[in-house]
Amino acid sequence: MMNRKVNQPLFLVACLFFAQHYTAQNSTHTATIKKIFDYTLTRGKAYDNLHYLCKNIGQRLSGSKAMYLAEAWGLQTMKNAKADNAYLQQCLVPVWQHKKDEKVSATWSGEKGGKLKIAAVALGNSEGTGGKTIQGTLVVVHNYEELEAKHNELAGKIILYNYPFDQTRINTFNGYRDAVTYRGSGASRAAKYGAAAVLIRSVSTAADNHPHTGSVRYNDSFPRIPAIAIGTMHADQLATLATKSEVTIKLKSTSTMLADAPAHNVIGEIKGSLYPEKIITVGGHLDSWDIGEGAHDDGAGIVQSIELINIFHAIGYTPKHTVRVVLFANEENGLRGGNKYADEAAAKNEIHIAAIESDAGGFSPRAFNGTMSEEQYMKFASWLPYLKPYGITDMGKGGGGADIGPLQQKFKTPIIGLSPDGQRYFDLHHCKTDVFEAVNKRELHLGAAAMAALVYLIDNEGL
Amino acid sequence: MMNRKVNQPLFLVACLFFAQHYTAQNSTHTATIKKIFDYTLTRGKAYDNLHYLCKNIGQRLSGSKAMYLAEAWGLQTMKNAKADNAYLQQCLVPVWQHKKDEKVSATWSGEKGGKLKIAAVALGNSEGTGGKTIQGTLVVVHNYEELEAKHNELAGKIILYNYPFDQTRINTFNGYRDAVTYRGSGASRAAKYGAAAVLIRSVSTAADNHPHTGSVRYNDSFPRIPAIAIGTMHADQLATLATKSEVTIKLKSTSTMLADAPAHNVIGEIKGSLYPEKIITVGGHLDSWDIGEGAHDDGAGIVQSIELINIFHAIGYTPKHTVRVVLFANEENGLRGGNKYADEAAAKNEIHIAAIESDAGGFSPRAFNGTMSEEQYMKFASWLPYLKPYGITDMGKGGGGADIGPLQQKFKTPIIGLSPDGQRYFDLHHCKTDVFEAVNKRELHLGAAAMAALVYLIDNEGL
Repeated sequence: MMNRKVNQPLFLVACLFFAQHYTAQNSTHTATIKKIFDYTLTRGKAYDNLHYLCKNIGQRLSGSKAMYLAEAWGLQTMKNAKADNAYLQQCLVPVWQHKKDEKVSATWSGEKGGKLKIAAVALGNSEGTGGKTIQGTLVVVHNYEELEAKHNELAGKIILYNYPFDQTRINTFNGYRDAVTYRGSGASRAAKYGAAAVLIRSVSTAADNHPHTGSVRYNDSFPRIPAIAIGTMHADQLATLATKSEVTIKLKSTSTMLADAPAHNVIGEIKGSLYPEKIITVGGHLDSWDIGEGAHDDGAGIVQSIELINIFHAIGYTPKHTVRVVLFANEENGLRGGNKYADEAAAKNEIHIAAIESDAGGFSPRAFNGTMSEEQYMKFASWLPYLKPYGITDMGKGGGGADIGPLQQKFKTPIIGLSPDGQRYFDLHHCKTDVFEAVNKRELHLGAAAMAALVYLIDNEGL
Repeated sequence: MMNRKVNQPLFLVACLFFAQHYTAQNSTHTATIKKIFDYTLTRGKAYDNLHYLCKNIGQRLSGSKAMYLAEAWGLQTMKNAKADNAYLQQCLVPVWQHKKDEKVSATWSGEKGGKLKIAAVALGNSEGTGGKTIQGTLVVVHNYEELEAKHNELAGKIILYNYPFDQTRINTFNGYRDAVTYRGSGASRAAKYGAAAVLIRSVSTAADNHPHTGSVRYNDSFPRIPAIAIGTMHADQLATLATKSEVTIKLKSTSTMLADAPAHNVIGEIKGSLYPEKIITVGGHLDSWDIGEGAHDDGAGIVQSIELINIFHAIGYTPKHTVRVVLFANEENGLRGGNKYADEAAAKNEIHIAAIESDAGGFSPRAFNGTMSEEQYMKFASWLPYLKPYGITDMGKGGGGADIGPLQQKFKTPIIGLSPDGQRYFDLHHCKTDVFEAVNKRELHLGAAAMAALVYLIDNEGL
């Protein structure tokens, strides 16, 4: 318990006042940022672009025909936005063949015996059963501790990892990071002890029977056993059944890896008027999983990024530095686009002064989070008063984005991630419910405008 | 342009640090607030309660059969939550008869003549045509200035107010307040000049053909002419047509006011352990419009309010003051419940130390806004650090709620409104799209927990 001083609220209010008002704002900046938001909220094109991408191209898994259509769309959309320069940057991407023919069912005997058909989606990059039906007794574990405790009982079994999403995490990305280890590494951890296959409780905040996909990462020391996502309700149902009966799982699938294929980062630039050789990168990823439409993940991020070109043209602003919009290839199951981009930057001795990514959904923007030096962070944080009127309430530390991570690792480029409100994201992330209709126009456009405002500030104030 | 001092960012960061950390937090408060959020996010019942209300009772216009069912549900839900005391407080409410039989169409002649059927909803409390079809030439105005300029041309005409929602307002409630005058007063302003009826462009951020309803307020000096909402796209289409052709509107409807009927505020209390005579009121409104399910407006607010009883029981917290949960009658088209509640408070000499309302949608909570004395505000604002970890980034001035407004007016009771993210709200407000499926569980529950945390702070620190 504390002793509250009588004048403490007064001091607090004084501090808040100073924090909010001491940074005298540059009135040109303030006016330009208002123009950015006014344009985007009234005449922005990101929502219509997203509609086209989701409904005319749809899901666009790396190496799929739709991925190439999306690349062509991206290039054309950059040209339509009157990018000074729009081009493709080739890389090779893994090709995961997934015919969506997986079948999973459970049977159990005893007085209340029965059978349950389970909605299932093979995890990205996973191997299937080669079209054969395999079967095994279900072993349910909630975490790796339980797996290790049961390691003598796993040979030939089918393991369900039923680790629930921690709903008490206010930042849902923390809940995601906490749970996603079972999706990524659960298969190999079980294969080590001879398991035949794994089922993964979807890494989802929703209570339903929609499986959520995502990458599996096999450890080459162990067999590549099938790894399949099931909905959170089915996971709970199986876990309950397994406490009462021996449950047998039957499972069939055909997914497998094919040879790498060429793909492309799609790039559009506005040439800098003063420092064309210095680059501010803004992007999201073009590829998506092969369920849903990849609307929030990451259709939103790429249409927001392209929107910056529209915005700067519409308000008549010519950046001093080159603004380069990048639709990265293959974020979901390889990160080959992000790696290629940084490799090319190194090969060409490019100067990257900052990189911004939107890959957390097209929801109401609430913060930017950056990974940069302390000195850079102080400048970055000082811009909060420019963005606060538009709902950005925090300039935090530690963010970025998967695709721009390699720039940071190679060159210590300051990287910044747009952080929208994340409460709805993991209901639909990597799921068939991630469709255009789940995106709100104003929320999407506020994010695009916030990114443009941040790029404007970096362009004028440096970082 | 400003001259930036070199050490300014440092000073800013120091200020931010003080603002965030100077108020040494009471560790009991911090721990209790965490319990509140942990419970609500994992085991809260608000979402399930909302599902029942929306799907088993649905829309609940004042005086309708469903309103009485909703009252009974509310009372039972308070009892299920183990309120110490649950009861009804009677008032009389206006009864607007609305058979949803309105028909509106437009015809125009000339080379490109044609006919358009227009989705239409009579505005709340409005009079119809008595079942007769009336017709008149369309006159489109964008605002009252244009209406006044054309006042000699309005006799016998049908006026369309085509005032667009100002999408540049970041706080959409400001856009709503700006535009809603045409819905409220447009009919009488046109009737003054002999208009036969008015069509109102829906006060909506969406581009679609869903009409949004809401109250009309007739001025008794002029005839009560029909007032009908149409979708934003139809409004634009009519406005364009009218620039090219003479457009005739045909219109038929039967809505009318009936005699007042009894209704009830539904009240549930947790008796205060130390100051049972001092009351903290928490509420939303039970009634809704008769399209959609009143899910965000204001099913969300009432299930969040009821949730406080569940929360305090679940975490084992007994408030020192009486916490009174009120599901107010008739907010939408009369405010009779809110007025009755304040009248009864006066008649019984009740002591109300604060009142909180949730009536801005069940979205991610972002702020509380209060109307209170400066001294009270300083205390209120000093609680921000307790709520910031849960996404509340502002304790602002000037909010409250329609139903608790009369308490403020009568007794200067501090009133506080929960302010969730409002970007999606006016897409669905007063519209058939305001259904359960538009509410996200985590967003709804975060709001309930934030309200419980605020009540806990008021209960312990006073206001």
